[in-house]
Order: sequence, then structure tokens, then C-alpha cells
Amino acid sequence: MEVFFAEPEQVSGRQITLDEFESKHILHTLKKKKGDEIRITDGCGALYHAKIIETAKRIRLEYQNYEKFEKAFPEVTLAVGFIRPNRLDILIEKCTELGVNRFILFRSQYANYVSFNLSRFSKILRQAIKQSLQYYLPEIVVIEKFDEFINKSVTFDARIVADSPDDPNLIAAFNGNKDSNYKSILLAIGPEGGFSEDELGKFKKSNFKNVSLGKTRLRTETAAITGVSVLKSYLQYNKETHIGNR
Amino acid sequence: MEVFFAEPEQVSGRQITLDEFESKHILHTLKKKKGDEIRITDGCGALYHAKIIETAKRIRLEYQNYEKFEKAFPEVTLAVGFIRPNRLDILIEKCTELGVNRFILFRSQYANYVSFNLSRFSKILRQAIKQSLQYYLPEIVVIEKFDEFINKSVTFDARIVADSPDDPNLIAAFNGNKDSNYKSILLAIGPEGGFSEDELGKFKKSNFKNVSLGKTRLRTETAAITGVSVLKSYLQYNKETHIGNR
Repeated sequence: MEVFFAEPEQVSGRQITLDEFESKHILHTLKKKKGDEIRITDGCGALYHAKIIETAKRIRLEYQNYEKFEKAFPEVTLAVGFIRPNRLDILIEKCTELGVNRFILFRSQYANYVSFNLSRFSKILRQAIKQSLQYYLPEIVVIEKFDEFINKSVTFDARIVADSPDDPNLIAAFNGNKDSNYKSILLAIGPEGGFSEDELGKFKKSNFKNVSLGKTRLRTETAAITGVSVLKSYLQYNKETHIGNR
Repeated sequence: MEVFFAEPEQVSGRQITLDEFESKHILHTLKKKKGDEIRITDGCGALYHAKIIETAKRIRLEYQNYEKFEKAFPEVTLAVGFIRPNRLDILIEKCTELGVNRFILFRSQYANYVSFNLSRFSKILRQAIKQSLQYYLPEIVVIEKFDEFINKSVTFDARIVADSPDDPNLIAAFNGNKDSNYKSILLAIGPEGGFSEDELGKFKKSNFKNVSLGKTRLRTETAAITGVSVLKSYLQYNKETHIGNR
């Protein structure tokens, strides 16, 4: 099954107008024609079942019906310091596929990179939700100041930070906890150089739980993908077996 | 801490001769000089503490002492169908960082790619173990025939295959099992097009356990990285808490 993307503004009445990128892919790669049915998400939970009514530079479609999907809980927010742009791309693609709901990019003391390209990220997000059959576009938030990030962190039900391999394993950190009815979880991953003493102190003061992602030294993007993988998998396990609620 | 790489053949007596790639990095990027100490692994468990005795195109060093590291158990072998080369590179890099011991590349019915470049893989493996501070180089095995792969699979203590999101979660699949004293685990991940009915039948016949890696549709390399992440994390958790041995 293939799914395409249209911003909510591109949906009007029962009609949808796709952008040039999506149109080109549909016409030239997939060789779709007038009358063919296509599925389109708006990244806000809707999946439209629509028919092509006009093949132009920007395809126009009309939908007969649509499905509305609920957001999955708990929401997972991944916070990372800036890293090398090509590695940040991989991080965003993979973590979106895995179902991250929000990315927070923050500046930290030992981060060597501060550049980012929001319009490139936006393309990666779209491709990744289409690829992984999800109907909610993750949000990307850039927070330039570390203290501002720490202030924002208190709005999450659970806060974890991966810093040292000697901390308790992520599964152990959650599994020991009786009250696992979280609505929102924040997972913070350091930049290549790790966090500074000052930053680690602020995490501690804000009740972040320290977790380990394994015994090997991981690049930031690997740590992020691994952290999200284990967290999502544990949450799914917990939902299916309720072992966290014993 | 930075670690460099030398094949066992490059170690002779108390002397080590590095290749041009490593030598260039040490001299030109890190600006090391005669007399400076450097750590070198041979990818077979040894970590040499050596001093530069000659700066040439191929640096020569002499070591005073070395550490020998034990292999971690259980061994994890990741088997994947061929995928697009640039995505296979990411898969191998990330899974090596996460501590995979062996890669099996096999040809399966719906795999669109069959090309691979063993010498490029070898570079990726070296970089990844240096990066992640590991001292054993994973093995890469190419098995052209699916049936041959299935025959080989019986030598592993536990065999799991990730195919459908509706199967039991990977953690659940292991956690229910009392006898978790495995020495070797084989995790198989399908190619982009999934496995064929025929292939799935052969997995079943060979007692592969079906597991899910989450509810979203994952690209092969994402599924591989996620599968290894969750498996390694669960094994670590199990080692620390013995919950699998209740």
C-alpha cells in the first residue's frame, strides 16, 4: 500500500490538490491515470481514499470517504543536541519511522554543530510517515538555549536521559515503576561530546532518570534510534502484558 | 579515547605496522608524533597500548602491554536479505555499533538487490568497532541460497524472525521463556518486499519464533537496527535482573 501527502490546506471541500513532488511521483513513477484511486494523508490523522480527477502539474483528486486515526499514547518526544547534518537526517528519518511524536533540537555545551534545515527535515518527515504508514506528522521544535529546554521538560510525565553505559538499562528503569500510566515521555540524548557536568546537574535537578542504552559507545544518532526502539518496544510490551502495573 | 585498527598479521613480535589509512589519520588529523602513545585493536579481542617509533606512510609502533577482552555472550547474528547498497551500509554500521557479532546476507525471493561490496563492508566494520570501543570485528557471511541459510540456522540456540507487526512483541517472545540460557541467537529480517509464503513456511518448519518490532511499517535497515537494539537491551536487562529465569 502506498500513501501520499497533502497539507490540510490542500484539502478543500471534497477536493485535494497535490504538490508537484507528489504529483510527479504518482504520474511518472507509478504511471497513475485519471480515475485511479490513491490514498492521501494530511499528517493530522486523516487518510483520504481519493480518485484522480485531473492529471496536471498538480494532480487534483476527489475523495469519497476518509478514515480518522487516533493518536497513540504515550507520546514520545526525542530531544537531541545538534549533530552533523547528514547524521541528523538519518536520526530524524529512522525515529519518525519508529513513531516518535516530537523532536526537540537543543543547543548544548559540547555540540559542535548548530546548523539545521527545517525545510529538508519537513521533507524527511513526510517521506518517513508515508513509508511507515503513519498518519500524524511529528513536530520539530528548535530550542536554542539549554535552560529553556530544561524549563520545557517539566511539562512531560516522564523524563529520561541517556548519558552513561553504567546507568540502569532503559527497560529496568521503566519496569521497576508501578505508576507507568504516562501520557508523555521525554527521552534526551547528548551530542557527540556528551553532556557537560553543568548540564547533567540540571537534568538531575529536573528529575530526569538516567538510563543506559548498552555497553558499547554509540554515536548520537545510533543512541537516539536505539533509545526510541527500546522505549517504544517496552511500551508496547507493557500495553500487551501490563507487567509494569503489577 | 580513540582506538585504531591493525590486522593480526600487522602485529609481529612487539611491533605493529599500521596501514596507510590509519597512519594518515593519526599523523595528519590527530598530529601525533614519535613517542606518542596510541591504542590499537586487532579486532580479535586484543587492545595494544603502543608507542609510535617511526612516522612513515605506514606508522610503526612498539607495544609495552596489551589487554585481552572476552567475547560477550550470547552472540547475536543478524540475517538480512539484500537491500539497496547505501541502506545496507547504514544497517551494517549501526548494528556493528550495537554489538552484532555476525551478519548473514542471504538472497530471498522478494529481494531486488543482490550486489554487495565486501571490501567496503570491511572498512565500515573497522570504523564502527573503533567508534564504539569494541575489540571484536563482526563476521560477514554471504549465503546465496535461501535453503542453505535455513540449513545453517539450526546451529543457533534461538532463532527469531521479524515479519508481521501482529506477532508478539520481541520482549514478550523472550520474556515468557524460562530457558533463556542461550549462547547464540539468530535474528532474521526480511528484504523490502517481505518474505514469500514459501520462505515463511521454511522459517516455521525450522522453529523460528515470529516476533513483531512495532506497529509501524519499517524499512529493512530500520527493522534490523530496532531488532538488534531491543534484543541487546533485553539481554542486558535479563543479565542484570534474571527476570527471564524466574
